[in-house]
Amino acid sequence: MHLTSERRLDDGVIEHTFTLGDAPGVLWTPGSVSGPVPLILLGHPGGLGRMQPRLEGRARSAAADGFASATVELPGSGDRPRIPAVEEARADMRRALAAGEPVGGDIVDRLVLPLVDRAVPEWQAALDALLALPGIGGPVGYSGGVISIGTRLAVAEPRIAAAVLFAGSFVPRAMFEEARRVTVPLHVLLQWDDEGNDRQAALDLFDAFGSKEKTLHANMGGHTGVPQFAGDAAARFFVRHLK
Amino acid sequence: MHLTSERRLDDGVIEHTFTLGDAPGVLWTPGSVSGPVPLILLGHPGGLGRMQPRLEGRARSAAADGFASATVELPGSGDRPRIPAVEEARADMRRALAAGEPVGGDIVDRLVLPLVDRAVPEWQAALDALLALPGIGGPVGYSGGVISIGTRLAVAEPRIAAAVLFAGSFVPRAMFEEARRVTVPLHVLLQWDDEGNDRQAALDLFDAFGSKEKTLHANMGGHTGVPQFAGDAAARFFVRHLK
Repeated sequence: MHLTSERRLDDGVIEHTFTLGDAPGVLWTPGSVSGPVPLILLGHPGGLGRMQPRLEGRARSAAADGFASATVELPGSGDRPRIPAVEEARADMRRALAAGEPVGGDIVDRLVLPLVDRAVPEWQAALDALLALPGIGGPVGYSGGVISIGTRLAVAEPRIAAAVLFAGSFVPRAMFEEARRVTVPLHVLLQWDDEGNDRQAALDLFDAFGSKEKTLHANMGGHTGVPQFAGDAAARFFVRHLK
Repeated sequence: MHLTSERRLDDGVIEHTFTLGDAPGVLWTPGSVSGPVPLILLGHPGGLGRMQPRLEGRARSAAADGFASATVELPGSGDRPRIPAVEEARADMRRALAAGEPVGGDIVDRLVLPLVDRAVPEWQAALDALLALPGIGGPVGYSGGVISIGTRLAVAEPRIAAAVLFAGSFVPRAMFEEARRVTVPLHVLLQWDDEGNDRQAALDLFDAFGSKEKTLHANMGGHTGVPQFAGDAAARFFVRHLK
C-alpha cells in the first residue's frame, strides 16, 4: 500500500488516498484520536469517482462515531482494467433488461461471481495494510456495496466483526449457500421499492444468513434513496458492535 | 373516564389507573413536565394484568422521551365479558393448530374482525377522554398490539400521527384493503422467526400500506423476543414524528 496524498476536510476528518497494487483507495481517519480506532470498510458498486460524494458522507459519519473508514476501487471498475467476461455478462444483462426479459441466473453468475472472487482477496489485502497503519485497530466492520462481496467477505475473513449489507444487487444462487455460513451480526438494508432489485431474492438471502443476530431494515425511496434515519440506524449498529 | 388511582414509580413516572365504561385502563405521565406532552397509545394482545410488566416498561421508555402513554383493556379480554363469537373462533383456531392444520381465512375473520370493530371506537373514546386531561396534548402515536386494530385506527382516526405496528397476529383479508388507505408514517416490527405468525402475510401487509414513509424492522428472537435495540429504534421513530 502506498499512501499518495493527505488532506484535512472541513470537519477535521483526514482523507488519505492510496494505491494497493493497481487499485486506488481512500482512507478516512477521525481528526482527533487517542489510540487505535475501529475500522469500517466501505463497500460500493464500483466507480470510486462517481461514488466519492456518498462515500465521503459515510466516512464523515463513521469518523463522527470514532471510526476510521476505507474503500478500494472494485476490480474492473473506475480506471482499472475491464474484466472481459464480466463486461460480456453486463452486456447480456442490459440486453435482457432492455427487452423486458428477466435476467437469468446464468447471466447473474457470470456478472457477479468473478467480481466476488477477485474483490474479496483485495479487501483482505487492504485490511492487512490498513491494520498495519498506526492509529487503525480493530474490530472491523464491512458496510454496503455489492451484497455478494459482503457475504463472501463475512464468511472468509475472520477479522470482520459485523456487517451492514445493502440488498440491492443480483444475487447468484451459490451465494445463498455461503450466506448460511455467515455468523457475525448483520444489519441488512433493503429499499422496498427498488425496481432494479429482486425483492424476493433479497428476503430469501436475509432468511438464509446463519447469523444469530440479523436485522432487516426495509424502507421506501428507491435504490439510491436510503433515508437519513436508516443510515443513522446502520451507524448505531456499528457503534453497538465495534465499540 | 374515571381516574381510580395514582402512584409514582421509582423513576418519577406517574401511573394513573382509570375506567372507561367497563374497560380498565392505565395512563402513564412523565414525572416532570412543562406544558402538554404528546401521547402514545400502547396496544397489546389483550389481558392487561398479564401484559402489565411489558406495558410498564414501554411506558417508562415513552416517559423518558417526554411522552405520556396510555392503554385500555381490549373487548373480551382480562376481566371484561367474553365475546361468544370470538371465543368460538378462538376454539376453532386452537383446534386447527392442534391438528397441525392451517388456520383458515374464515376463522381469522371471525377471530379478528369483531375485535377490530369493537376496539377501535373504544380507543377513539379513550383518546377523547385522555386529550381532555390537563398536561396531555398531541400529536398522538399508536404502538403495537393487534396489527389489524392499529391499521384500522390509523385509517379511521385522524388524530393518529404515526404508528409502530407489530406484525405478529393473523390478518383478515379485508385488512389488506384497509392498509392501502393508511397514510401516516409507519414503523413495522416483524419477528422473523415467530412460528405462530404468517411471515408472508406480514410482508404482504407491509407492502400494502399506503404510507409514503414506512419502514420494516425484522429481527430474530421469536414472538416475544423483540431485541432491546429494536425497541430503541421504535422509540426514536416516535421522537422523530411526535416531537
